[in-house]
Amino acid sequence: MKTIQEVIREAESRKVAVGHFNISDIVALRAISEAAGEIGVPVIIGTSEGEGDFMGREQVVALIRSLREDGLDIFLNSDHTHSLEKAEEAARDGYDAVLFDGGKLPFEENKARTREAVSRIKSINPEIIVEGEIGYIGSSSELLKSLPEGAAVRKEDFTTPEQAREFIKATGVDLLAPAVGNIHGMLMGAKEPALDIERIREIRKAAGVPLVLHGGSGLSDEDFLAAIDAGVSVIHINTEIRVAWRHGLEKGLEKKLGEVAPYKILPEALQEIKEIVRKRLRLFNKISS
Amino acid sequence: MKTIQEVIREAESRKVAVGHFNISDIVALRAISEAAGEIGVPVIIGTSEGEGDFMGREQVVALIRSLREDGLDIFLNSDHTHSLEKAEEAARDGYDAVLFDGGKLPFEENKARTREAVSRIKSINPEIIVEGEIGYIGSSSELLKSLPEGAAVRKEDFTTPEQAREFIKATGVDLLAPAVGNIHGMLMGAKEPALDIERIREIRKAAGVPLVLHGGSGLSDEDFLAAIDAGVSVIHINTEIRVAWRHGLEKGLEKKLGEVAPYKILPEALQEIKEIVRKRLRLFNKISS
Repeated sequence: MKTIQEVIREAESRKVAVGHFNISDIVALRAISEAAGEIGVPVIIGTSEGEGDFMGREQVVALIRSLREDGLDIFLNSDHTHSLEKAEEAARDGYDAVLFDGGKLPFEENKARTREAVSRIKSINPEIIVEGEIGYIGSSSELLKSLPEGAAVRKEDFTTPEQAREFIKATGVDLLAPAVGNIHGMLMGAKEPALDIERIREIRKAAGVPLVLHGGSGLSDEDFLAAIDAGVSVIHINTEIRVAWRHGLEKGLEKKLGEVAPYKILPEALQEIKEIVRKRLRLFNKISS
Repeated sequence: MKTIQEVIREAESRKVAVGHFNISDIVALRAISEAAGEIGVPVIIGTSEGEGDFMGREQVVALIRSLREDGLDIFLNSDHTHSLEKAEEAARDGYDAVLFDGGKLPFEENKARTREAVSRIKSINPEIIVEGEIGYIGSSSELLKSLPEGAAVRKEDFTTPEQAREFIKATGVDLLAPAVGNIHGMLMGAKEPALDIERIREIRKAAGVPLVLHGGSGLSDEDFLAAIDAGVSVIHINTEIRVAWRHGLEKGLEKKLGEVAPYKILPEALQEIKEIVRKRLRLFNKISS
């Protein structure tokens, strides 16, 4: 059984990326774990604070561990954790990774809080990997009518290599999520902002740690591959899965009027999510279908 | 931490019944565990073969154990297990109880197969409790237009005290589910058949083990209380929860058009299920609200 550190290191050396997908129910978890198992690649499951509250953090840990015992390289990340208390809770509950998200804070405050988070998390379990975030890229994995206010969409707001170097040195995080044109959520009826691939390359070099790309939903295949080649080793997909979940659920309910057994209605959602995950995992791992 | 044996024995001596509720997703599990935790009573979770296949039996075991570690008296039953292979699988996966259901078989064959199931299950783990079933009471936890074909709805088809005595002696099951006018599923636009309370009392006396009432959905409060007083120590509710699940889900989707985050849509279903479970647990445990 590999550790999450080994899996990310291996992805980096092979110039592929590990897919990170969020869940708030067992349907998405099954879809993701089945897709990863069938393709034969590792996968990271994320729960945001809201998702973790809803499912129960200890219950998600139990689910992931039982899947890992079945032989799957599956890991659990506490996604976008904003408070030190929630970060410590996730560490104690048995999460494999924590994204401490101070991206919306002023840079100096972000550095100080993230350093504190790293210290608290590692003192609970030094094996947990901690990710830091520089720059605000929105916070909602939803369908958006417009860009989130204050999000770094102009080049002058992107994370700089100097910030990355300074941040890593000050905080000791294992992974870095920069703002490089990526935005959480999916824009309806508008083109997603373009990724600054050159900036990713510069940040990776300056940071010295693997990079994480958030807000992957809606990006083009070319952007993903270029980002991986420039130094991204983990890619987050959430909104696309949620859209597939709702769509599949509505389809299941509509096709089975009068049916009340969840396990006869939910397979539609499972299949739609699985299709998305399969496509993304193949792309991120450069596996031709 | 109590064992499932202790919990059922205690229910029997206190003249209450343990509620048994089926799940095929995490929403129902949260609703049930929260309701039981808030009221402060033990609860049994069931998965049928289809429900267990959908959620993953090892994953359900992991979920239930993590809730038990949180201090809840919650147990897991492999509901209506028809094959010896599935019964053994559930035992190996860590289920606390198995209902081996030979109720549709001729009586002699039912006895022989159930005896074999008891022997195989107990050889895997002697702590697992095994339930047997006499008489066919339908097999679908759905909304029904008419009574299931072949179901024991006439008094002459009900389980007799003699059958119960013989069955227990031959099989060694820990619990018995008799056919006493109860039917799986809920009848639409028709009255549920009435329970034969006197027969329950006679069967309990002849069997010498606690009785389980299946097909509880749709029965009246009076029938439930009379059945408990006559010797029923576990009551199964499934269809009512499924109906609440679908209704709550449709309401959640309708109220939140354009919303795609499951944890913002599912709470409607959670609340509807929780309301049912709360009502049933209060009744079965004779707790006035």
